[in-house]
Amino acid sequence: MDPMTVITLTTDFGHRDWFVGAIKGVILRQAPGARIVDVAHDAPAGDVASAAFLLGQALQWFPEEAIHVAVIDPGVGGERAPLALRWRRGFLVGPDNGLWSWLERLTGHPVGEARRIENPACRLPELSRTFHGRDLFAPAAAWLAAGGRFEDIGPAVAPAVTLPWPEPQPTGDGWRGQVLYVDHFGNLITNLRNDLLLAPAGEWVLRWGAEGVAPVADHYGAVKPGEPVAVPGSTGFLELAVNQRSASRMLGLGRGAVLELARRQNA
Amino acid sequence: MDPMTVITLTTDFGHRDWFVGAIKGVILRQAPGARIVDVAHDAPAGDVASAAFLLGQALQWFPEEAIHVAVIDPGVGGERAPLALRWRRGFLVGPDNGLWSWLERLTGHPVGEARRIENPACRLPELSRTFHGRDLFAPAAAWLAAGGRFEDIGPAVAPAVTLPWPEPQPTGDGWRGQVLYVDHFGNLITNLRNDLLLAPAGEWVLRWGAEGVAPVADHYGAVKPGEPVAVPGSTGFLELAVNQRSASRMLGLGRGAVLELARRQNA
Amino acid sequence: MDPMTVITLTTDFGHRDWFVGAIKGVILRQAPGARIVDVAHDAPAGDVASAAFLLGQALQWFPEEAIHVAVIDPGVGGERAPLALRWRRGFLVGPDNGLWSWLERLTGHPVGEARRIENPACRLPELSRTFHGRDLFAPAAAWLAAGGRFEDIGPAVAPAVTLPWPEPQPTGDGWRGQVLYVDHFGNLITNLRNDLLLAPAGEWVLRWGAEGVAPVADHYGAVKPGEPVAVPGSTGFLELAVNQRSASRMLGLGRGAVLELARRQNA
Repeated sequence: MDPMTVITLTTDFGHRDWFVGAIKGVILRQAPGARIVDVAHDAPAGDVASAAFLLGQALQWFPEEAIHVAVIDPGVGGERAPLALRWRRGFLVGPDNGLWSWLERLTGHPVGEARRIENPACRLPELSRTFHGRDLFAPAAAWLAAGGRFEDIGPAVAPAVTLPWPEPQPTGDGWRGQVLYVDHFGNLITNLRNDLLLAPAGEWVLRWGAEGVAPVADHYGAVKPGEPVAVPGSTGFLELAVNQRSASRMLGLGRGAVLELARRQNA
Repeated sequence: MDPMTVITLTTDFGHRDWFVGAIKGVILRQAPGARIVDVAHDAPAGDVASAAFLLGQALQWFPEEAIHVAVIDPGVGGERAPLALRWRRGFLVGPDNGLWSWLERLTGHPVGEARRIENPACRLPELSRTFHGRDLFAPAAAWLAAGGRFEDIGPAVAPAVTLPWPEPQPTGDGWRGQVLYVDHFGNLITNLRNDLLLAPAGEWVLRWGAEGVAPVADHYGAVKPGEPVAVPGSTGFLELAVNQRSASRMLGLGRGAVLELARRQNA
Repeated sequence: MDPMTVITLTTDFGHRDWFVGAIKGVILRQAPGARIVDVAHDAPAGDVASAAFLLGQALQWFPEEAIHVAVIDPGVGGERAPLALRWRRGFLVGPDNGLWSWLERLTGHPVGEARRIENPACRLPELSRTFHGRDLFAPAAAWLAAGGRFEDIGPAVAPAVTLPWPEPQPTGDGWRGQVLYVDHFGNLITNLRNDLLLAPAGEWVLRWGAEGVAPVADHYGAVKPGEPVAVPGSTGFLELAVNQRSASRMLGLGRGAVLELARRQNA
């Protein structure tokens, strides 16, 4: 590969300890020309479904042939396999725990063949039980960046874990969905695609709980500060927000909360 | 421009979600040689005045011809314009909300012509209403880095928003000022320039509220741990600190709090 | 040195203010080809001992000839000297407060000669009292990266501060140790080396306080979620964890807490 290959890092390791630094050091020692790009290191801790959504939103924008490392890995040291996968837009490296489940759906680019990382050239000589980011995933990414062949990483395997995608359900006059992701502003991103609003035409509201209701508008500022509003999000999905506040905190809703998109009733 | 152009990023997007990653991906795809430098991604959320101070403190140190992107943008999706501006030391890209108001004052380098980002070549094909960092500002910065002409970005405009600078007021024996910025250590940075202390000579104290008073000294350790002290700060402005603690928390003061610099009374 | 020299940054400046941005700007202006790598900017604030452990865990993985800057500097502006040091694997730049005390022990690579940063070419023209990261340490690192001679930085000195290493003490049937570092997952990393477990063979437990006890196992998942377990850590030291929780919070233990590694009693 190009010696200036981009390697992106997405982890829940934070910026407090040595974890991210050690990963970067391992990569730079093996692939000195690699361009390391931090995507996020405060990904929701151990939350594979949120990370799967995050990766689907971030990785699609990078140049082709980038190598994407993700280490949200609550099962480290257990039985889950370490994987490298081909993706239409580069390579993916991380644990076999479902992290890549939604990548094709969210980006349109299919995920291809998976290999179990086994080649000793793709690992540090000593393998710890608790830090595979440093010992396995960083070396495998650096090995690809330095020109190693994908096929030599290890045997082809089928990923063991795939997270089911929560498909919205039709109701009489709309759709029942759920909160997929809570961002750091507290906005609640749903599984209701923006284009559900297009047809049939009409005015919509988003409902939750016994009495919660928010108008659908095209930007946060369409309601007063402190009031809820549902907007077609930059993710391609409807999001429930509170203008200038955290919707998650003010409405008491989190991942998995059920929502209904319905037509406004003209009583 | 130089293909190794530095592009700095200053946002309030945090490190938890995909926002920063998507911006970096968009830049690298359009300007593969650009050197992306993270300035701060936990800038005080939606707080344009604090960001204006932060930018004035950070950007002056970078090489000339750098491109500086700032996305603290509480009005995203509303009427505020997306701008690119010439600066004596490079280019500035961000929303028209006052972010650049204090740059000349704080750095000595004037901000020049502003252009409204309108050229379709400086935007993603589809423009979301809530994530102009990815859809508008990153592409415009990458376009400049890849050699696009500033004049082609869009029509020349006058920025609509300029934050007034809070000038200190003379009192009988000193100056009345205010807290401009609270840093993450809890130090309270004021609008009182260090050089106000120079003339006339004498010993000074900083006062606040009914009874608050701190000596002016030349470093935090001049007082015991837990005690307040005012020091000529590295920003060029006096800061009120508490040795080894958070002054903001211990003194209960925040942005806008009024302070008086006065000569010590020899009773 | 190589114009693409890696300069790593480890600080407690956070990502909220301009501190890290200003340091990066100063480096890039003086050493335009330097590759700046963020190790950690949320290092435990003002906690030199934790930083010494962090640096020992992170820096060993980087390429030789890297330049490592660390600014955890609670004594900034006081009497402590600014230092540059030779290290078997590159150079070290930071305050003389003990930050490098454990680097040789944790990495096996000796720290060599120290120089006090005095050469005006290795400092900004004006030196603030409170931000030596920008004014002294960044310029000194950039100067080395741009080909400046180590010997010209300033006079050779002996570092004034060395943190003592807390050696574990033998007990009748094991070892008494302590918590060295609390990571952001809340795992408690001890001064008990993994290899203390090897001989004599047998089954071990880790004890603390009046009644605390955890089995030693080889990964977190060996116990149920919410239960404590001691595992040989990726740092080379035993760590006390709670599966899928924060051990620090659940067990109420922090840095310095005393622990005993003992053989399991077969009553």
